Amino acid sequence: MAEEVILLDFWPSPFGMRARIALREKGVEFDMREEDLSNKSPLLSKMNPVNKQIPVLVHNGKPVCESLLMVQYIDETWVRESPLLPSDPYERARARFWADYVDKKIYPVGRKVWQSRGEAQEAAKKEYIECLKVLEGELGDKAYFGGERFGYVDVSLIPFYSWFYGLETTANFSIVEECPKLVAWAKRCMQRESVAKSLPDQRKLYDFLLARIKKLQAQ
Amino acid sequence: MAEEVILLDFWPSPFGMRARIALREKGVEFDMREEDLSNKSPLLSKMNPVNKQIPVLVHNGKPVCESLLMVQYIDETWVRESPLLPSDPYERARARFWADYVDKKIYPVGRKVWQSRGEAQEAAKKEYIECLKVLEGELGDKAYFGGERFGYVDVSLIPFYSWFYGLETTANFSIVEECPKLVAWAKRCMQRESVAKSLPDQRKLYDFLLARIKKLQAQ
Repeated sequence: MAEEVILLDFWPSPFGMRARIALREKGVEFDMREEDLSNKSPLLSKMNPVNKQIPVLVHNGKPVCESLLMVQYIDETWVRESPLLPSDPYERARARFWADYVDKKIYPVGRKVWQSRGEAQEAAKKEYIECLKVLEGELGDKAYFGGERFGYVDVSLIPFYSWFYGLETTANFSIVEECPKLVAWAKRCMQRESVAKSLPDQRKLYDFLLARIKKLQAQ
Repeated sequence: MAEEVILLDFWPSPFGMRARIALREKGVEFDMREEDLSNKSPLLSKMNPVNKQIPVLVHNGKPVCESLLMVQYIDETWVRESPLLPSDPYERARARFWADYVDKKIYPVGRKVWQSRGEAQEAAKKEYIECLKVLEGELGDKAYFGGERFGYVDVSLIPFYSWFYGLETTANFSIVEECPKLVAWAKRCMQRESVAKSLPDQRKLYDFLLARIKKLQAQ
């Protein structure tokens, strides 16, 4: 049977980027459908009735929601190419822990950085760097989070790299000065075709972020 | 090698209950160590340095954190007894989605119910019932969330049943009237030894909750 793989997505979404990278790592052809979040498609509401959020992976008509679950699904479905999760249950639990940490910290704290001002923003920037340093500590001197091979934690975190320039420029701080090893890891990931093709240009994301900030300030 | 399984836990924690149930489903002997959350043990700080939160499963000296990851680890490590996650990748993604929904909704909204007052509490009660109804819709007429067999979503949700009486009594509303099928499912789960042994008495939890509410109001 011919596979039908559709990704309901929105280009600046780090969660959508995870699915794009995982599919490309596996060599799966997919149809990326850009959603207008102010006017969501009937297909999105049908495929994710609980949250009505992107991304949604629709595989042969069946929806998979939540980006980390999607990456696990992709890994378990297209098993032959590029395994993303470790095969050992303990290592798998560790990888899931760090991906969960990215969800619980990097996304919400990054949001605080660009949505706040003054003292609140200074605190958010400090917290953001602290969280990145925790991840940098876990990375250590390894090439990737899982060791020599690009895997699940890398897929989970690398999309946020595309937001770094926008955050640094709008909030006036330097991630590369604080976390040089993590930035070196990010550049290593960017050399992979799956990543380079899936992450938008940092300057395009900066423009997007600037427009969001202006809209927020006008409210 | 003799297995050493330690669970760093706190008796009212629904997250700790998940690990207890999963271990008992698998017939794994474990040493449950009660933590004093106002004076956490050095072992807890060592085993979960990132969050310093219970529960932590320590298996032969190695820590696994985050309750849902713990249940998956238990399922993948002691594979022979009572499989908890479905074997099909799509069904597995669905089960993970609903367990994630429990984490994102039932816990934080339940917390809003007992921590708020007046109009905010009315809104929280309404939201809590709505979330339970979404889960009841997913359960449908099945015996368990996965069908005929007790599994991952059941393990994830059933601990919150032990809080129902406390929530209903302190916030003055009836879950059983609104969600009779879900309560019938909970009673079905309670007939399992793994669940009955792992959930504290609802009245003991009510006393615990009342003390927490009084402390909150005194602040």
